[in-house]
Amino acid sequence: MMNIRGFASDNNAGASPEVIRKLEEVNQGHVVGYGDDPYTAAAVELFRKHFGQDAIPYLVFTGTAANVLSIAAGGSPFNSVFCAETAHIQVDECGAPERFTGCKLIPVSTGNGKITPSMLTKHMTGFGFEHHSQPGILSISQTTEMGTLYQADEIRELAEFAHKYGMILHMDGARLSNAAAALGLSLKEITRDAGVDILSFGGTKNGLMAAESVVFFRKELSETFKYIRKQGMQLASKMRFVAAQFIAFFENDLWLENARHANTMAQKLYEAIKDIPEITITQKVEANGIFAIIPKNIISRLQEEFFFYVWNEDRGEVRWMTSFDTTDTDIENFVKVLKKLLASG
Amino acid sequence: MMNIRGFASDNNAGASPEVIRKLEEVNQGHVVGYGDDPYTAAAVELFRKHFGQDAIPYLVFTGTAANVLSIAAGGSPFNSVFCAETAHIQVDECGAPERFTGCKLIPVSTGNGKITPSMLTKHMTGFGFEHHSQPGILSISQTTEMGTLYQADEIRELAEFAHKYGMILHMDGARLSNAAAALGLSLKEITRDAGVDILSFGGTKNGLMAAESVVFFRKELSETFKYIRKQGMQLASKMRFVAAQFIAFFENDLWLENARHANTMAQKLYEAIKDIPEITITQKVEANGIFAIIPKNIISRLQEEFFFYVWNEDRGEVRWMTSFDTTDTDIENFVKVLKKLLASG
Amino acid sequence: MMNIRGFASDNNAGASPEVIRKLEEVNQGHVVGYGDDPYTAAAVELFRKHFGQDAIPYLVFTGTAANVLSIAAGGSPFNSVFCAETAHIQVDECGAPERFTGCKLIPVSTGNGKITPSMLTKHMTGFGFEHHSQPGILSISQTTEMGTLYQADEIRELAEFAHKYGMILHMDGARLSNAAAALGLSLKEITRDAGVDILSFGGTKNGLMAAESVVFFRKELSETFKYIRKQGMQLASKMRFVAAQFIAFFENDLWLENARHANTMAQKLYEAIKDIPEITITQKVEANGIFAIIPKNIISRLQEEFFFYVWNEDRGEVRWMTSFDTTDTDIENFVKVLKKLLASG
Amino acid sequence: MMNIRGFASDNNAGASPEVIRKLEEVNQGHVVGYGDDPYTAAAVELFRKHFGQDAIPYLVFTGTAANVLSIAAGGSPFNSVFCAETAHIQVDECGAPERFTGCKLIPVSTGNGKITPSMLTKHMTGFGFEHHSQPGILSISQTTEMGTLYQADEIRELAEFAHKYGMILHMDGARLSNAAAALGLSLKEITRDAGVDILSFGGTKNGLMAAESVVFFRKELSETFKYIRKQGMQLASKMRFVAAQFIAFFENDLWLENARHANTMAQKLYEAIKDIPEITITQKVEANGIFAIIPKNIISRLQEEFFFYVWNEDRGEVRWMTSFDTTDTDIENFVKVLKKLLASG
Repeated sequence: MMNIRGFASDNNAGASPEVIRKLEEVNQGHVVGYGDDPYTAAAVELFRKHFGQDAIPYLVFTGTAANVLSIAAGGSPFNSVFCAETAHIQVDECGAPERFTGCKLIPVSTGNGKITPSMLTKHMTGFGFEHHSQPGILSISQTTEMGTLYQADEIRELAEFAHKYGMILHMDGARLSNAAAALGLSLKEITRDAGVDILSFGGTKNGLMAAESVVFFRKELSETFKYIRKQGMQLASKMRFVAAQFIAFFENDLWLENARHANTMAQKLYEAIKDIPEITITQKVEANGIFAIIPKNIISRLQEEFFFYVWNEDRGEVRWMTSFDTTDTDIENFVKVLKKLLASG
Repeated sequence: MMNIRGFASDNNAGASPEVIRKLEEVNQGHVVGYGDDPYTAAAVELFRKHFGQDAIPYLVFTGTAANVLSIAAGGSPFNSVFCAETAHIQVDECGAPERFTGCKLIPVSTGNGKITPSMLTKHMTGFGFEHHSQPGILSISQTTEMGTLYQADEIRELAEFAHKYGMILHMDGARLSNAAAALGLSLKEITRDAGVDILSFGGTKNGLMAAESVVFFRKELSETFKYIRKQGMQLASKMRFVAAQFIAFFENDLWLENARHANTMAQKLYEAIKDIPEITITQKVEANGIFAIIPKNIISRLQEEFFFYVWNEDRGEVRWMTSFDTTDTDIENFVKVLKKLLASG
Repeated sequence: MMNIRGFASDNNAGASPEVIRKLEEVNQGHVVGYGDDPYTAAAVELFRKHFGQDAIPYLVFTGTAANVLSIAAGGSPFNSVFCAETAHIQVDECGAPERFTGCKLIPVSTGNGKITPSMLTKHMTGFGFEHHSQPGILSISQTTEMGTLYQADEIRELAEFAHKYGMILHMDGARLSNAAAALGLSLKEITRDAGVDILSFGGTKNGLMAAESVVFFRKELSETFKYIRKQGMQLASKMRFVAAQFIAFFENDLWLENARHANTMAQKLYEAIKDIPEITITQKVEANGIFAIIPKNIISRLQEEFFFYVWNEDRGEVRWMTSFDTTDTDIENFVKVLKKLLASG
Repeated sequence: MMNIRGFASDNNAGASPEVIRKLEEVNQGHVVGYGDDPYTAAAVELFRKHFGQDAIPYLVFTGTAANVLSIAAGGSPFNSVFCAETAHIQVDECGAPERFTGCKLIPVSTGNGKITPSMLTKHMTGFGFEHHSQPGILSISQTTEMGTLYQADEIRELAEFAHKYGMILHMDGARLSNAAAALGLSLKEITRDAGVDILSFGGTKNGLMAAESVVFFRKELSETFKYIRKQGMQLASKMRFVAAQFIAFFENDLWLENARHANTMAQKLYEAIKDIPEITITQKVEANGIFAIIPKNIISRLQEEFFFYVWNEDRGEVRWMTSFDTTDTDIENFVKVLKKLLASG
């Protein structure tokens, strides 16, 4: 078991100290359970401040839950859900979307994690044909699982495409903060204003302990969601402690500060290695993830000192994620070891 | 929105301060996510200390999840699950067990929340008959939703009954600590040693923030559980923070201290009101809940000052739960107001 | 394996000869599959003739499918379905409703298989309360599984009750023909006109081979049903052969003739045994089923000569069903053996 | 609505006359329902004669049901199912597999409908990793949806591959008869003997009315299947009428005769058009289906006289299926019209 620092995932980091302090702060006296408390009300207000007054947020515990319950709310079991073949819902949720919603997921090959309308056109068939799962949801990730970003215009174009075909646009925003920070746009500009219908907005990967959310931008889609969340086993009895995390997140723009820091660290790492001839950066470094092909023979030795995941064994492609608590020293140490291994390789 | 003290539920209380302190303590540096970290390992060891070396615990976020995933692990969709008609799985989980597991729940009328073998006998039919859901799981709650307790012998008898018919014995131990405290027995004596196969062991109602668990006492039932938990959207990425809560729970016997306190407060309340002629206590007060019929005309006025639930509107039956943070003053104030209302009633 | 005549079930009989002839008749040339053929169109017209021009019928293979898919169309997974504790959906479908729809079934104790509004009142709670399955469907059987009948007024009253609480009224009409025949009312009068929203209308128990249907009386409930039927694995590729059975059913009022005959045979059996002192008839004989308590010691000997089911082993209660092909001789032989066994008892 | 002859699908044909005759023959007297009757026993024996004495067949109504229930029997909800991207379970069952089983389907790009081990290798990862659906089932179609065939050796190789990775090999044999006829092998040689674990064996596309089956070659996989079939709404009450169809199918080798005829007609059509320069045959013609690219401008005019499906609108690719009742005249007329349209095109 490792307890060393690393670049494995933004959830190997702990929580921002402000979050723990906020938990302590709300831990006073009795409040009604299950969300009918002043802290949850305050969190809802903060969501609305950032996502617009008509945003309807629901808090849950995990990112998988946010995604799966979004699909359950936005579709019927006979619907298909289009997503990148690298999407979290496709490869990292053990089939939870299928099990809970009954929907069919249709993976789309993208290269860089970003779907474009032209990739979807050939799937826009079979409407009304009962033999085929009916196109129901387009799900995109922002930032993508490949560390890349959708521009606001690209999202708008996808929303228009989805809506033209009667589909819902869902966004997996587990790393939405990093996208907003990188694009210099508000959370609202790249979600509600760009046509997103249902958003999974994550906090855990950006400095919270265990706090995620489903945010609806269309009231009619949210109307039975409280039952779906309960059936999805995601209704917190002591909701104030989930709410508190989001309060800390929004207060003093912790979400933005954390995300900016992680992004900056990724850029720093990128700058430090981009010219190393033995290393090929395989995706644009737009947020807090770097994908790179490195000599296979140094991978395991590098992992002995810094934990990270191999993305593609065949190609020798690895993924390095930075987080809100990555330090300059982390980067420097890492690059130092990396270079040493390459030299001795 | 109320922020007043009350007797609504043991989850209107916050968390024990030790829990927040432990969160702070584990919030250091990087650890691997999803449970492969030293804190989770430590929590597992503590579970084993209390439940036996062969106990296999999995951490989850909610009590509903612990129950539903227990059923998913212990049964097949064509199985029936027998439970008290007052059981949490039957009345308080919005049908989550049916939705996630496909099983049929068969409620048994009990009066006091406790199932006996004789109540089940008539259901022990149709084995091998494909038209009938096949008896698969017996689920009991300890303490029951009516505030009553099973003696260790009663559990053993139910386990023998269940096993004789090829069923699994599941225990919903959302308030197991209160039972152990009241019975003066170890957690192991009223679970594993009494024949329980799968246990939902709760922390949240007894002073944790959001930490529950599924504990297997038969290895073969647990073998695919990690996938079930993931599909159940209950795999914490920053698992250390769920583990930390259980570490605090077991350290210095916080679980026992909290449960004892809640039980003591219930007894104190009971003693203060049991001889009031206008009040009829409807269930044995064995743990931390009191069920009582009180004059209907004072219920809403009493609720204005102390939050609690009406259990049965017709009968004027109410439920008062005490918790780890109920104080002598809470009891005294409550009894004072109660008596005043009865006098003026 | 028995091949003897008996009173086990109306589906131990074969099919009316007219049905086989109709299969032969439609077995000519090519038609489009999956229901877009002239025979299905003709069957739909016949349904509309009997159930009203706004009836929307869908053909399926089994009665369990008709019921389960009706529930899937009329409810959401977070809904509860109220039914008699003797209902087919509760006791004879191996939990298929729960598995396919996710809904919670709530059995209501009735004695004679008939639900009344007063039995439901206590369940009409928890609306909007996310912890509780939301009342969504009231499902009644006509005729009931106890051989009894709802009068048209009783159905109307239940429909009003259901609609008042925002619920759908579903009728399991596996033996609807027998009810219409016994009541001297049209199929429409005891379904659409009485407020039924979704009907399972059965043919198999009344002389068809394998042909059942779901009939919608509210268009908006049917709008996605074709996908539900397909997902429910009930879309016949060679639909003409299911349609043909219903064409034969409606032509020359075969449905009515068959049902009347079965009812008459039940009355005949009833008349022949009602005054036998050792026999207690336990339910009103209103359609084609008789429930009776007979001396336990003769049950198995009687079963050696005529196949039938024991309904309640403890009480010595048995069920005798007559069918479209029961003959006077069947009744006479049966009564003769019964009396002989009682005499020798 | 068309009633014209065509090449749309082998289920636009009716049933072999022998099938109707057999229905008439078994329609005598009473037999026990749900499969405990002499006709079902006889059908089971015939299955064993063709598939081996250890084959365990279950009868169902639809091909979708046979596939979906096979997956339910062979996998758990956390399993993935690999299939060709053209597989019936992937594109023609409206997501029924996902809804009923909860499994994730992973489509594999093949070109000709045939999977090879090398296409699967990259998916053989993540075993034991709870984030990923666990590889559980490999499902292949024989004949494939592209009209092509697996050789017995190719199946064996896939079975070995599947078993090496702990997966089950499922075969969708909706058109297995055509494959056996084309290969000149017995049904057993291309299923059980080649390593298939669970088989969907179809009758409907080859001259039956509505009769399909699930055949297990490993007893342990079948042990709870009767409950799965019932929950899957596929248990026929008057089972003798499904059994009768299979009796007719196996008697006098009707299955083989029908399949051979359909295959021969496809070859005949192929011979008649293969040298037409405006037509490109896109798949090997190995069984009873032909895929061809034809000039787009004649497609709809050709469809006015003969019903068939466009497979790929962009390419102008169409599918022509022959069936047991396709006649020489059908072929001649079709080719005549086709040539006329091409000439006038």
